[in-house]
Amino acid sequence: MLGNCIENVRKNVPLVHNITNYVTVNDVANVLLACGGSPIMSDEPEDVEDITGICGGLNINIGTLNKSSIEGMYRAGRKANELGHIVLLDPVGAGASALRTNTALGLMNEIAFSAIRGNISEIKTLALGSGTTKGVDADLADAVTEESLESAVIFAKEFAKKTGSLIAITGAIDLVADADRCYVIRNGRPEMGRITGTGCQLSGMMTAFLVANPDARLEAAAAAVCAMGLAGEIGWSGMQDGDGNATYRNRIIDAIYNMDGQILDKGARYEIR
Amino acid sequence: MLGNCIENVRKNVPLVHNITNYVTVNDVANVLLACGGSPIMSDEPEDVEDITGICGGLNINIGTLNKSSIEGMYRAGRKANELGHIVLLDPVGAGASALRTNTALGLMNEIAFSAIRGNISEIKTLALGSGTTKGVDADLADAVTEESLESAVIFAKEFAKKTGSLIAITGAIDLVADADRCYVIRNGRPEMGRITGTGCQLSGMMTAFLVANPDARLEAAAAAVCAMGLAGEIGWSGMQDGDGNATYRNRIIDAIYNMDGQILDKGARYEIR
Amino acid sequence: MLGNCIENVRKNVPLVHNITNYVTVNDVANVLLACGGSPIMSDEPEDVEDITGICGGLNINIGTLNKSSIEGMYRAGRKANELGHIVLLDPVGAGASALRTNTALGLMNEIAFSAIRGNISEIKTLALGSGTTKGVDADLADAVTEESLESAVIFAKEFAKKTGSLIAITGAIDLVADADRCYVIRNGRPEMGRITGTGCQLSGMMTAFLVANPDARLEAAAAAVCAMGLAGEIGWSGMQDGDGNATYRNRIIDAIYNMDGQILDKGARYEIR
Repeated sequence: MLGNCIENVRKNVPLVHNITNYVTVNDVANVLLACGGSPIMSDEPEDVEDITGICGGLNINIGTLNKSSIEGMYRAGRKANELGHIVLLDPVGAGASALRTNTALGLMNEIAFSAIRGNISEIKTLALGSGTTKGVDADLADAVTEESLESAVIFAKEFAKKTGSLIAITGAIDLVADADRCYVIRNGRPEMGRITGTGCQLSGMMTAFLVANPDARLEAAAAAVCAMGLAGEIGWSGMQDGDGNATYRNRIIDAIYNMDGQILDKGARYEIR
Repeated sequence: MLGNCIENVRKNVPLVHNITNYVTVNDVANVLLACGGSPIMSDEPEDVEDITGICGGLNINIGTLNKSSIEGMYRAGRKANELGHIVLLDPVGAGASALRTNTALGLMNEIAFSAIRGNISEIKTLALGSGTTKGVDADLADAVTEESLESAVIFAKEFAKKTGSLIAITGAIDLVADADRCYVIRNGRPEMGRITGTGCQLSGMMTAFLVANPDARLEAAAAAVCAMGLAGEIGWSGMQDGDGNATYRNRIIDAIYNMDGQILDKGARYEIR
Repeated sequence: MLGNCIENVRKNVPLVHNITNYVTVNDVANVLLACGGSPIMSDEPEDVEDITGICGGLNINIGTLNKSSIEGMYRAGRKANELGHIVLLDPVGAGASALRTNTALGLMNEIAFSAIRGNISEIKTLALGSGTTKGVDADLADAVTEESLESAVIFAKEFAKKTGSLIAITGAIDLVADADRCYVIRNGRPEMGRITGTGCQLSGMMTAFLVANPDARLEAAAAAVCAMGLAGEIGWSGMQDGDGNATYRNRIIDAIYNMDGQILDKGARYEIR
């Protein structure tokens, strides 16, 4: 089932417009190419509407926002809404600064997001209007664990209902929810946190999965999360003596490049609640 | 013959000023170092003239242009013209947005480019003043094939004559033309399109080749195209089970690092029309 | 002794705010994660004070400065000073343009830097108020050699005394000095100069080392330099046929990832003058 979602990406080659941070942008582009999509980056306000117009989806990531790119996010988001395109928000560092929190909340007020993907601290910040975030990583006190899982699932569904967006909360356990159903996903490895940008890569890839699977959006978002986590497992299994996070980064993107529907279906570990 | 061109880069270590996009800029810097050049990046309007002044060539790439960097492109381009430096234009996404098309055309009006390198859709956009571009990739309808080759060669020569620039059109078959002669190059692999930025890397490298070979510019531009394609072939030959586009990216830059004149002469596949 | 310094980074996981160039930013983030720190990037003036506030250290790198990020550097630097945080300056290209030289000198006037790290040409520019820099690389005429070592050590100590900052001058021989003592370090390999950003990576990592070792700052800075150089040696020893600077880049970050106090103590090659 989830395997179809990646096959559809490879079949449809969705063009994804990314307004994303300059830290991990190269990896976002390469993972989009790896999964079968096609990336284009543009943040200049006078450029973004045209670019969004030729794409199927828009990935907004506030990781290194600035005044000009924030205006670009609003313009591109509105245009994508007009065109009925997929729009995803990755609220990097929401809770870590007023500008990030306010930008994410402001965007949510004006733009209908198909999906919002972040760590638990970022998503809680959006839900509560404030929060504590340790930089761009989740606060340990917020972490989704087996103990807090049931309440986290309820939280994710409720926030999905309130926002009308798919909510993807990633961490040791990943949640992908709409108002009614929540995928609880246990793919991935803790060492992925030692690479910059696996979250940003996932947001780019999830946008492509959503564009290519218009009739199964929740499944598509869950498939993207499973694919990223599974790539982390496959990549880790190939690690040799002396390899570290730089090599691991490459192996994860390589694993996406080589992933087909069968591999994803076999490796995806999830339950639906 | 072409082999001399890369040897001259290694001998002269040309310093190349790049105003380029933030997606692929790291790879551009590393491929410039790999081929024997030395990169410096600067796009701030108040910085670019000094930086261009100490360099031998300027590589302008509009992949993630913004208002400030556009001003930087004009200022640096004018200064480079004054100094008689090599200036190359990579019109990424021309045809995909009005701002990109207009910026590329505007730069061509004010600045004399030594070379313009893009895919066929981008170059057609510049030649015709409009075009269709699928994002940053060429439109399939435009592709240079064995059937359309003869007319594409004529087009490239005519556009070179009209602009006074070397014209490099890269794709499955690559063309590098001045008004009289056109290199038709058949190096490379289709999988290079699954890596972000091989075109941007080529533009950076071509600038270095042009700077280091002032008396053989057409040959230098063709040598850079052959070198990049050949690196794609060499890199691919080293791919192992499980490798994908992230590893391939590294192998291509590694192949440039290890390429000498003999390897290039032996591997270059081209004819002159 | 120096080995403790990296162990303290892994124990304390210092959060480092980086205002750094977009060329090498991804490698800076990954090397910070590799050594046990946690990176966050932000250059927007309205964002930087909040971000600096939650971090332990600030790494300012002027490699691709622009008017907005320069304002960000001042604001973040002042805030970090108020909070008593570690602040490091990497004056990339000082001497290569008036804007870079003036920005570096201006920042030094207003902000108390814990450490300044650059190549000899950049540091001389700061000391003398002018200089010659070949792009972002040191001028050969300035190089620290066995012959010029004694006078270079005196220069480093004097500049440390004058500025109140630790002074790290990196090249074939590295110097790390306060007013009284100077580490003379002979780790590293010349091939590291064929990779973009090993200096930028070192600046990020040095910031983390300084944050995690408040009672041994000179040692911490020297440990970071030794670690980077040693990683260059370890990474090189793993190079295979066909490998080049792209693979070498990954191997160096991997070597940092796998480095512990024992490896560092065993591999560090230095004397104190």
